[in-house]
Amino acid sequence: MLDPALLRPGRFDRQVVVPIPDIDGREKILAVHMKKVPLAPDVNARTIARGTPGFSGADLANLVNEAALLAARRNKRLVAMQEFEDAKDKVMMGTERKSMVMTEDEKKMTAYHEAGHALVSLNEPASDPIHKATIIPRGRALGMVMRLPERDNYSYHRDKMHANLAVAMGGRVAEEIIFGHDKVSSGASGDIQYATDLARNMVTKWGMSDKLGPLQYEASQEGYLGMGQTTRTMAGSETNKLIDAEIKELVEAGLKRATEVLTEQEDKLHLLAQALLEYETLSGEEINRLMKDGKIDRPDQPAGPAILPPSQGSSVPKAGKRFGGSGEAPQGA
Amino acid sequence: MLDPALLRPGRFDRQVVVPIPDIDGREKILAVHMKKVPLAPDVNARTIARGTPGFSGADLANLVNEAALLAARRNKRLVAMQEFEDAKDKVMMGTERKSMVMTEDEKKMTAYHEAGHALVSLNEPASDPIHKATIIPRGRALGMVMRLPERDNYSYHRDKMHANLAVAMGGRVAEEIIFGHDKVSSGASGDIQYATDLARNMVTKWGMSDKLGPLQYEASQEGYLGMGQTTRTMAGSETNKLIDAEIKELVEAGLKRATEVLTEQEDKLHLLAQALLEYETLSGEEINRLMKDGKIDRPDQPAGPAILPPSQGSSVPKAGKRFGGSGEAPQGA
Amino acid sequence: MLDPALLRPGRFDRQVVVPIPDIDGREKILAVHMKKVPLAPDVNARTIARGTPGFSGADLANLVNEAALLAARRNKRLVAMQEFEDAKDKVMMGTERKSMVMTEDEKKMTAYHEAGHALVSLNEPASDPIHKATIIPRGRALGMVMRLPERDNYSYHRDKMHANLAVAMGGRVAEEIIFGHDKVSSGASGDIQYATDLARNMVTKWGMSDKLGPLQYEASQEGYLGMGQTTRTMAGSETNKLIDAEIKELVEAGLKRATEVLTEQEDKLHLLAQALLEYETLSGEEINRLMKDGKIDRPDQPAGPAILPPSQGSSVPKAGKRFGGSGEAPQGA
Amino acid sequence: MLDPALLRPGRFDRQVVVPIPDIDGREKILAVHMKKVPLAPDVNARTIARGTPGFSGADLANLVNEAALLAARRNKRLVAMQEFEDAKDKVMMGTERKSMVMTEDEKKMTAYHEAGHALVSLNEPASDPIHKATIIPRGRALGMVMRLPERDNYSYHRDKMHANLAVAMGGRVAEEIIFGHDKVSSGASGDIQYATDLARNMVTKWGMSDKLGPLQYEASQEGYLGMGQTTRTMAGSETNKLIDAEIKELVEAGLKRATEVLTEQEDKLHLLAQALLEYETLSGEEINRLMKDGKIDRPDQPAGPAILPPSQGSSVPKAGKRFGGSGEAPQGA
Amino acid sequence: MLDPALLRPGRFDRQVVVPIPDIDGREKILAVHMKKVPLAPDVNARTIARGTPGFSGADLANLVNEAALLAARRNKRLVAMQEFEDAKDKVMMGTERKSMVMTEDEKKMTAYHEAGHALVSLNEPASDPIHKATIIPRGRALGMVMRLPERDNYSYHRDKMHANLAVAMGGRVAEEIIFGHDKVSSGASGDIQYATDLARNMVTKWGMSDKLGPLQYEASQEGYLGMGQTTRTMAGSETNKLIDAEIKELVEAGLKRATEVLTEQEDKLHLLAQALLEYETLSGEEINRLMKDGKIDRPDQPAGPAILPPSQGSSVPKAGKRFGGSGEAPQGA
Amino acid sequence: MLDPALLRPGRFDRQVVVPIPDIDGREKILAVHMKKVPLAPDVNARTIARGTPGFSGADLANLVNEAALLAARRNKRLVAMQEFEDAKDKVMMGTERKSMVMTEDEKKMTAYHEAGHALVSLNEPASDPIHKATIIPRGRALGMVMRLPERDNYSYHRDKMHANLAVAMGGRVAEEIIFGHDKVSSGASGDIQYATDLARNMVTKWGMSDKLGPLQYEASQEGYLGMGQTTRTMAGSETNKLIDAEIKELVEAGLKRATEVLTEQEDKLHLLAQALLEYETLSGEEINRLMKDGKIDRPDQPAGPAILPPSQGSSVPKAGKRFGGSGEAPQGA
Repeated sequence: MLDPALLRPGRFDRQVVVPIPDIDGREKILAVHMKKVPLAPDVNARTIARGTPGFSGADLANLVNEAALLAARRNKRLVAMQEFEDAKDKVMMGTERKSMVMTEDEKKMTAYHEAGHALVSLNEPASDPIHKATIIPRGRALGMVMRLPERDNYSYHRDKMHANLAVAMGGRVAEEIIFGHDKVSSGASGDIQYATDLARNMVTKWGMSDKLGPLQYEASQEGYLGMGQTTRTMAGSETNKLIDAEIKELVEAGLKRATEVLTEQEDKLHLLAQALLEYETLSGEEINRLMKDGKIDRPDQPAGPAILPPSQGSSVPKAGKRFGGSGEAPQGA
Repeated sequence: MLDPALLRPGRFDRQVVVPIPDIDGREKILAVHMKKVPLAPDVNARTIARGTPGFSGADLANLVNEAALLAARRNKRLVAMQEFEDAKDKVMMGTERKSMVMTEDEKKMTAYHEAGHALVSLNEPASDPIHKATIIPRGRALGMVMRLPERDNYSYHRDKMHANLAVAMGGRVAEEIIFGHDKVSSGASGDIQYATDLARNMVTKWGMSDKLGPLQYEASQEGYLGMGQTTRTMAGSETNKLIDAEIKELVEAGLKRATEVLTEQEDKLHLLAQALLEYETLSGEEINRLMKDGKIDRPDQPAGPAILPPSQGSSVPKAGKRFGGSGEAPQGA
Repeated sequence: MLDPALLRPGRFDRQVVVPIPDIDGREKILAVHMKKVPLAPDVNARTIARGTPGFSGADLANLVNEAALLAARRNKRLVAMQEFEDAKDKVMMGTERKSMVMTEDEKKMTAYHEAGHALVSLNEPASDPIHKATIIPRGRALGMVMRLPERDNYSYHRDKMHANLAVAMGGRVAEEIIFGHDKVSSGASGDIQYATDLARNMVTKWGMSDKLGPLQYEASQEGYLGMGQTTRTMAGSETNKLIDAEIKELVEAGLKRATEVLTEQEDKLHLLAQALLEYETLSGEEINRLMKDGKIDRPDQPAGPAILPPSQGSSVPKAGKRFGGSGEAPQGA
Repeated sequence: MLDPALLRPGRFDRQVVVPIPDIDGREKILAVHMKKVPLAPDVNARTIARGTPGFSGADLANLVNEAALLAARRNKRLVAMQEFEDAKDKVMMGTERKSMVMTEDEKKMTAYHEAGHALVSLNEPASDPIHKATIIPRGRALGMVMRLPERDNYSYHRDKMHANLAVAMGGRVAEEIIFGHDKVSSGASGDIQYATDLARNMVTKWGMSDKLGPLQYEASQEGYLGMGQTTRTMAGSETNKLIDAEIKELVEAGLKRATEVLTEQEDKLHLLAQALLEYETLSGEEINRLMKDGKIDRPDQPAGPAILPPSQGSSVPKAGKRFGGSGEAPQGA
Repeated sequence: MLDPALLRPGRFDRQVVVPIPDIDGREKILAVHMKKVPLAPDVNARTIARGTPGFSGADLANLVNEAALLAARRNKRLVAMQEFEDAKDKVMMGTERKSMVMTEDEKKMTAYHEAGHALVSLNEPASDPIHKATIIPRGRALGMVMRLPERDNYSYHRDKMHANLAVAMGGRVAEEIIFGHDKVSSGASGDIQYATDLARNMVTKWGMSDKLGPLQYEASQEGYLGMGQTTRTMAGSETNKLIDAEIKELVEAGLKRATEVLTEQEDKLHLLAQALLEYETLSGEEINRLMKDGKIDRPDQPAGPAILPPSQGSSVPKAGKRFGGSGEAPQGA
Repeated sequence: MLDPALLRPGRFDRQVVVPIPDIDGREKILAVHMKKVPLAPDVNARTIARGTPGFSGADLANLVNEAALLAARRNKRLVAMQEFEDAKDKVMMGTERKSMVMTEDEKKMTAYHEAGHALVSLNEPASDPIHKATIIPRGRALGMVMRLPERDNYSYHRDKMHANLAVAMGGRVAEEIIFGHDKVSSGASGDIQYATDLARNMVTKWGMSDKLGPLQYEASQEGYLGMGQTTRTMAGSETNKLIDAEIKELVEAGLKRATEVLTEQEDKLHLLAQALLEYETLSGEEINRLMKDGKIDRPDQPAGPAILPPSQGSSVPKAGKRFGGSGEAPQGA
């Protein structure tokens, strides 16, 4: 009838979610899987572990496997660091869908959408640094901006939450600024869901709203036949009104911040989007150079990363600037 | 207790639903199924793939099968491009129900309903072009306007959404203009459901309402024993009131646009409906010609497409102008 | 996450429910079942098919079976058209319960209740014509007015909906006019449910309320363990208030119309109810004649249709005017 | 998507629930069961059938069985009409619990409670006549007033509903008048539930409220794992407020009526309650005589019906005026 | 569709819950179980039956069993009346937990809590008399006041309900008066639940609120997979507001009454609590004597009832005044 | 239909939850498990039992097992008191995660979070004394303050509840004071949930709100397929509004108290956090000394408790001040 835990000896702590391996754990997991693969001398498990924060054990197994497949397709006897780098992108961002024939309009809109995310991210100090931005379709996405923290990250602070809300809004805002109100697309629905969920957690679980205070207003239940369910535990209609208003205010503050950044830096937005249209994929480093120097220097190869297309052979000629080479082109990515 | 995804490395993207094959995928799928069928020299898998955006793998398998059945019924040894064209209509729009004996009144009302959809579509620049309009019953429909994009389509923009809302309302509006308030039928319930669902997604998932902002207000759950469920995740009564009002405003804006178009162009509505009553099925091209020249030129055959009636033999004499020929009549459809 | 159907090529149509066979289908189904039965020369499947719109395949199988049983009980070697006619009533209206001993008061109230339905129906041009009216208890009903369209019917127009609302209210209104406020019975609960459901569909699914517009406000779910469920998809309390008010207004408009008709034509109400008390069952034709000439001419037999009582033999003597003959009395019904 | 029944040929009727056998049915069912039992010449199945309206098939089987057991316990070779009469009470009202030792206070309160029901019933012309009133505990009841219609009853009119509401309130009101506000007991909970359910049906299913009109506001569902469920189908809060108020008004009108009757006729209430305390069980006939003559004439036996106690032998001596005889005492009950 | 019970012959009654055996039943049940046990001559089943109102069949079986175990532990060949008396306490109040080491503060608070219940009970004429009060932990309780009616009780009157509400509040009120606002404990949660449930039943099922009248506002459902559920059947928000207010008023009236009694008789509260601290368990008789004479006379033994500790042997020395003797100490309890 | 418990003989008591063994129980359970282990002479089951209030039987079995494992890893033949002490921490606080590489910033924030909890606890007289404070990650926690009552505790008083609310808020408040509004983290979500649950119980189950009185407003259900559910049993919206407000007021009073303490004693907060950064784990005794003397005297070993790292061998060198020794270092902890 009454919660025994409330009578037990008290324990107060600072809790985080640590369900994924830390750097030591990743190194050990990589070591296990690498035993089955012939490695080139340049491969260092610790270096790879450092560059893969947030990877689960299954992600790491997958990474080693993909690296081996890439080496085979490239006719190499040993799996080198380059293969691990390329495999990391595939695991993190999904398989490329090079065969998708997008119109120029769609490509242009995607480029500005991703450039919007990226430019807001560059202007938010608390945001994780950009790993890559791309307009090559991958999985269910037409384009993507991937950010990666520099090391294992156990804390999630208010300034980073606000930054993430602004970055999430960057894609939609860029669409609106460049193509106008009428051409805004449904492609931001994932961003919208992310931002709403984050703002809801801030208000109802993490005590980040001054008006609602440090109380829990929503409880998740493991649910019923595996179906997660979230219920408001405070049921008064005034409370619900206030929660809705606070969530909305948080998301719209992100929208406002994104709008300010992208309106003021519309020239940089064009620069970044054009670079994406030209090179299709940009590394975080290249984006930084572009912002600083106004240009990117790539040796001899105008566009396209070294990642190979899916292994199933295809006799259909590819369109335009894209290609699916099979060599071991040395790239800066 | 707290969503791990919110702590993981960030990924922002422009998402679309790509669960159906793109043009390359369709070409490959067609190639597989065509191997089992004797093809005429004029058949080109790429051409068929280009004309079937939105078809799933099962649809394409069905298409090849239906084309083969048609050729057999037409006593042809090889399956030609004509059979693939006719089979495409059957797969897209359902089996014709030629035996349904409709009254002249019902036929007339259907003709104006479909003409309404078609005429609004012609006046909405963002609408996909019309593939066919018909008043031959198919599946659960008494008539139909089928639109088909010119190529694979990955983006869904606000102007197209508004266009679709107006086109959806065109049928009901035409009924009201021509037959009056008392004769409006329940036949628009599918259109009403489509428009309400679209407007709801615009407001609650795609951030298309300025008043509600870029937030997610409704979440779909895969549900329980396979029963999909949609729940409002914002629970305040003020929020619900605003959502209802915004959805209503969007649908009624479509209704207003459809009413404007059809009131101004009532002569064209008559023209189109009369042509449907005369020819029963019109291609998009014929509709365009009709709108431009005021008439349609068909060689010698007044009405009825080349699609054969269902294969089960029937000894019951067919009524009126319809027929279920088995020849290879050369048609413009 | 986002409904794929909204991205697929668009299709707008005029939908109806056609889950039951049309006239051709019925003819074929009858043909199959009639093969097992020795038919009299006067039997024509097409004629029976024309007279049974709305019958499902199972209804038709049942019809042939009942006709055969009737012929057997009448000691006939061949099943004639008369048997099919009588079997049709049994299938449509349920088994008669001749053994039910109703008081004169109950019979009188039933007669006025059915006369109320019938008289309103005669005054509503959009109503389907009356097939039969009866005060012989059948199934769960003490009496019944059965209407039958003249042919297959695929459209359901607003004027017919309003007519049906008025006809549904006719029974209750007649009870109140004749027997007074205190004697109104619970026997109208089926009519009340029918009218409420119809009005609800008009408002929430068919867009027939100007105040609520062409939106879907209620969705049916196939549900859970076979239990259908209907949920309001618009959740605002203002919306719910408006929906309730519109449904009430529609039903009460039917009530008002029924009250006007029956108050003005109270003499005809008496005439019709008295005829029902005298003859127990009246055909639509007889009712028309009664309304026109003020009387019905039946050759020599005062009351009771030719349909036989249930087959299980009963040794208990039947009361009053009823009888359960076994002859082949030639009737006008 | 849309209810097919609404498109089918229309049928309007006056429906009742007839799930229980009518008089002919009861006679036949009795005949079947009586074959297994040696009957005295005075037994007439038709007479018993006439006296058991509302009995189900199982009730009738039980009735014959109990009559046989009674005869055996009374050492009779043949089952006579008297046994059927006594068995009828047991089936209708439950097994007597003679061993229950109630205090004089409890007996007195029960007597006034039942007298209250009975006296209100006598004053309501639309009420069914009283069959018996008793203060011998049966089943879960400390006392009981059993009413029985004079014949099969298919109609349920507004005046009878109002009468039943008043009769239901009679027990509670009598407690309050005689023993005062403080001594009112929880024993009226069954009456309260009955009255609330009846009033709810009047308002939400039978259209008996002028303010809410002839609409259905509540639907019952066969439910889920056999659990019946009733849902309000009109969801607006104004509607719910009105429904609650109308139900309350109906029940409280019954309360007012009962209060008027019992206050005006307090002398008769005492008379009736005293008779119940003296005789424990009174037949309807005796009650009528008591009301008319102010007394009851019973030959020689002051109290206690002829019904025997439960068959399991008991060696415990019984208290007070009660006895469990085994003879065939000739009674007026 | 419509509740058949509403059409059946009417039955109005005064219902109670009699799921437990009455005195005769208890005597018979005891007789069955006593056959297996060697009884001392002083044992009388009727006497025990009289002293165990409210015991179920399982309770009685348990009682005989515990008495036999006690006799064995006391090295007696026959089970005497004393053993039955002691076993009765164990069955009614749960096993003692003598090993629980409570602080003096906890013991004191418990003593005043129980004294509060007891003193209010003594001041409420409609309350059942106290059987025992104890501060020896039993089951989940740190202390207990057990009341026992003098005989089988079938009626539950309003004055007794009000008394029970006050008695329930007595424990919490005593804590507050003696130890102050800050030291009030969660130990009253069971009393709070009891009082709330009782008040809810009074308002929503037993018609004890004048504002809400004799209506049923809440229905219990046997529920779903064994999970009982209670739903408000009146859904208007005004109704819910009124119900909440009435329940609160009833409970707070009990609180007010308890506060008045305990404030006025604080000296008696101290007297009773001190006696509990000294003797740990007091019989109702002793409490009455204490209230009258200001002291209790116990022959030679200062504290502790004759009930033995749980049978599992324990070598741990017991603390303080408690002991677990095994003799047949002659006690007044 | 009506709760039988309400009619049964009444029982009022002071209930607590005693599902865990008391000191005697713990001693016996320990004795059973210790039989399987070679014990050093200094081991005393009673002493361990006294130091483990709140431990379940499974916790105690685990404790003995962990102590044995520690002795084995330390190459000791007998399990001594030291091993039991170290094992107790592991069982109470979870396994250490020494391999987690936290940044200095994260460590610093954790140190202030835990120092906040600890300092508020020291200032709340009703709080249980601190057992240990640590910033070594354990289980899902980055740091922890563990409190342990001095003996078995059966009462939960209002002053302790208020103290616990303040202590729970101490972590979040310290973050805000030291690192500012922007750096507040999601790490307090567990504290927020604890405080909200406690405040809810105070208001809805324990009658601790004067505005809501001693009523039960929320009932827990064992639920459905093991899914606990809590429902508000009072449904009026005014009631819900009041409950929400009272819960919020209680939690915010704790927040205010924590803010006062930590603002006034910011110097002590720095002192405590710095000590945690230096020594990583502090015993309650050390914290008391630090608060009194401004310093901690540890013999020769600067930091790190004697608890060994997880048993799986790891060849990765550990970072910084931590170490995982295997000796029997004599510690003050």
